[in-house]
Amino acid sequence: MEFSSKLLEQAVNEMSQLPGIGKRTALRLVLHLLRQPKGQTMALSNALQNMRNEVKFCKSCHNISDNEFCEICASHSRNTEIVCVVEDIRDVMAIENTSSFKGLYHVLGGKISPMDGIGPHDLNIDSLVKKVKEGKVKELIFALSSTMEGDTTNFYIFKQIQSYNVVTSTIARGISVGDELEYADEITLGRSIINRIPFEASLKL
Amino acid sequence: MEFSSKLLEQAVNEMSQLPGIGKRTALRLVLHLLRQPKGQTMALSNALQNMRNEVKFCKSCHNISDNEFCEICASHSRNTEIVCVVEDIRDVMAIENTSSFKGLYHVLGGKISPMDGIGPHDLNIDSLVKKVKEGKVKELIFALSSTMEGDTTNFYIFKQIQSYNVVTSTIARGISVGDELEYADEITLGRSIINRIPFEASLKL
Repeated sequence: MEFSSKLLEQAVNEMSQLPGIGKRTALRLVLHLLRQPKGQTMALSNALQNMRNEVKFCKSCHNISDNEFCEICASHSRNTEIVCVVEDIRDVMAIENTSSFKGLYHVLGGKISPMDGIGPHDLNIDSLVKKVKEGKVKELIFALSSTMEGDTTNFYIFKQIQSYNVVTSTIARGISVGDELEYADEITLGRSIINRIPFEASLKL
Repeated sequence: MEFSSKLLEQAVNEMSQLPGIGKRTALRLVLHLLRQPKGQTMALSNALQNMRNEVKFCKSCHNISDNEFCEICASHSRNTEIVCVVEDIRDVMAIENTSSFKGLYHVLGGKISPMDGIGPHDLNIDSLVKKVKEGKVKELIFALSSTMEGDTTNFYIFKQIQSYNVVTSTIARGISVGDELEYADEITLGRSIINRIPFEASLKL
């Protein structure tokens, strides 16, 4: 791509570093900013700089936070004995939106993935194991995505904590609400039959 | 969407102002920046600010430029008597990539579109008409997209300049190279038959 302006070229190059944004999309976004009032570009770049410079991670659960401890960890109305282990902060937001969990979270910051060069020590696993060792946690819920990397990570953590007095569970796998059986994959359908729940219990959900 | 950090929320809100970027995509992009070294966020925001503050538009053709006149208008090897009228600078880049045009461009900055509140006076039409009036232009090639708005804009400009001594043409519409006839729309296929060219001439392309 030949640009008539070095400034434009630099902006497009930087924008196209973002995941899923190619050169063409980057050009479209940058030209959009050029057409809008200057204030919009300034607000965007200031917001990004402020966030990158000032944002903190909660010292307890590694969630993104403006303070030393995030709102969830600092809250007095949460059950601190149940910890839900998730991959990143988007999962915290997703689970919080369901309003069905009142415990705390622990954000790993990724999954063990040798193919991508991510080992256990690149993740926030040590601090989780420490919490368990200190006897602060009664139940650990694994809520990682159901992939090989997710399963590996679950198993790695499980091995580290199995000798301590803690209940471990994993979120249920099954047919999504509203989905038709015939389109479900075999593994999911099989698991949903093996892990069936009493009908009367399902009426109360 | 509930955010655990105001700084994160602001960054996501600003990012989601960009066209085609929703809140979820914005969050993904912003979290990616958080995972990368600080330098990347700084480089992106500086490049955007520099571009928005410093970029100029060529005084002659309204193309984006770092100088008063863009490289194409300032070049001595271009034919200044043929002007190709395009919608925005992406079209200039696209035509330049074909290496098949050695004249100058004129960037309108959009199309006449009453539905979007864009009238002739929001576009760089007056300066184009002035160039024609001054007798600097021998041929005008309309290269706007083939939509109702594009056709309206072509016709509006044509009306303004038809009394002057200038040849006007429009880029050829037809079946794309490599496309199969059966999937072409009727209007395009019809035009490609009406505007057929001598077979011997096509061999030389």
